[in-house]
Amino acid sequence: MTSDTGVHARAGRLELDSSLTADGPSAFDAVISPDWGMKSTPNGGYLMSLVLRAMGRVFPLHDPLTATAHYNEQTEIGPARIEVETIRVGRTLARGMARLIQGDRERMRVLAAFGTLPAASGHPLYSVPRSFDLAPLDECTAVVVGTPDGGRASVREHFDVRYDPSSIGWVSGAPTGKPQIRAWVRASDGSEPDRHLLPVVVDALPSTAFDLGVDTWVPTVELTIHQRARPAPGWLQCAWDSTLVADGMLEEDGQIWDSAGNLVAMSRQLALLPRSAGSSS
Amino acid sequence: MTSDTGVHARAGRLELDSSLTADGPSAFDAVISPDWGMKSTPNGGYLMSLVLRAMGRVFPLHDPLTATAHYNEQTEIGPARIEVETIRVGRTLARGMARLIQGDRERMRVLAAFGTLPAASGHPLYSVPRSFDLAPLDECTAVVVGTPDGGRASVREHFDVRYDPSSIGWVSGAPTGKPQIRAWVRASDGSEPDRHLLPVVVDALPSTAFDLGVDTWVPTVELTIHQRARPAPGWLQCAWDSTLVADGMLEEDGQIWDSAGNLVAMSRQLALLPRSAGSSS
Repeated sequence: MTSDTGVHARAGRLELDSSLTADGPSAFDAVISPDWGMKSTPNGGYLMSLVLRAMGRVFPLHDPLTATAHYNEQTEIGPARIEVETIRVGRTLARGMARLIQGDRERMRVLAAFGTLPAASGHPLYSVPRSFDLAPLDECTAVVVGTPDGGRASVREHFDVRYDPSSIGWVSGAPTGKPQIRAWVRASDGSEPDRHLLPVVVDALPSTAFDLGVDTWVPTVELTIHQRARPAPGWLQCAWDSTLVADGMLEEDGQIWDSAGNLVAMSRQLALLPRSAGSSS
Repeated sequence: MTSDTGVHARAGRLELDSSLTADGPSAFDAVISPDWGMKSTPNGGYLMSLVLRAMGRVFPLHDPLTATAHYNEQTEIGPARIEVETIRVGRTLARGMARLIQGDRERMRVLAAFGTLPAASGHPLYSVPRSFDLAPLDECTAVVVGTPDGGRASVREHFDVRYDPSSIGWVSGAPTGKPQIRAWVRASDGSEPDRHLLPVVVDALPSTAFDLGVDTWVPTVELTIHQRARPAPGWLQCAWDSTLVADGMLEEDGQIWDSAGNLVAMSRQLALLPRSAGSSS
């Protein structure tokens, strides 16, 4: 087991709320915080971040390059155990799997490949220009969005989020009809974005489906995140889009760009849309 | 264990080359065909299809809605064992994992959620219009592309592929500089597309990187496929794009639309780009 080599200017709230106590070389006792969720439901990105932190402590390579989480059933606030399996360690990739367990129930499973993230090079062989529009920061709207049923979404209180007004029509009762979220995001405690924060960012904001007039919970079935570079300090510029919302399912594709203009993470999740939420078929 | 309920007009070559012999309720003996690969390397999509077929026989729900494969090391042509673990079965989702093993080595691991694919409804709550350009079929180019080093790519011989000429500049020695593939695709044996064929389609064509002047192997680290509907019979209209090619990695995003104009599958893979292949950083 090697130490976590993450570099922080100082410990942020996420790190403080992600404590892991090793129990042998590949198992950890953790406590699922009540402060990173939607009402009593822990945020899927927070859980992903916690599990990846555990895996990164077991493997000799510490950065999650690609990680897929399956949410088998709802994780509860409180004690949990994380068991990490090493599948294969090579020179550039360390592969493994982890289970998040509460009592005798496996709540979540993660399959991932770890490596070493580059500093954003600024000299890629190819990068698309940022293809989404995002209004300037001072034209965006700071609003803390609660749960669909008016509850507290504590996970969002850790972020300073400035929404492009064109992507949150539903906030003022006028859904745009376009399943898009556009926002500037940074941690509200002043900590800078890193490999631990990005998995939370990709899952913390409201669903793209809200601007289709959907106002229910949209539980994640599966979430995959590719991290491609260590983000520069500063505001993140983020976009989520859905391509197809049909037959009780939707996918959400996320992009996170850092303040230096580099694409640092891509995410895709498949989520359940309650049939009552307006499928017209 | 339930039977495979896939409906075929007749058995296609893929089905014939994907035989599985059950050994108990959750394990199968398989033979990796020499005819679905690149030289002696079995195609990753073919392996994915084979493993998902095994999982679909174990679970009470038979359609892979979201599946993630990690390719730990190269699978070899010849005998293999597939071991399926059921993680959780609910009313709408069956979750599980599978390992493809040869000798004492785990070559590949798949994490997936199965359900029931709808017929393409044509009445989604939301669907983007098809956003990529694809020239009419009779203006596209039928060419069988081999491996980067001039070998046989047997997996491609099972498909009638018509490339949009604007996306295969490298075939005539003039890479376009855009990491895009656009093509019409159907099985050359006359079988119609289904949940088993789509995982092969998403991984069978040349890498998007070739039109960046890259001419090496681009091994897949991880491949995730969302299937969203049963495809209508006929030609598939396909697009692959890379967003970022940098620091030894690239991602390829695929979309498959059926002949009725419905998005039936989305894929994303993270692949390794040899450092020698021109990263300018």
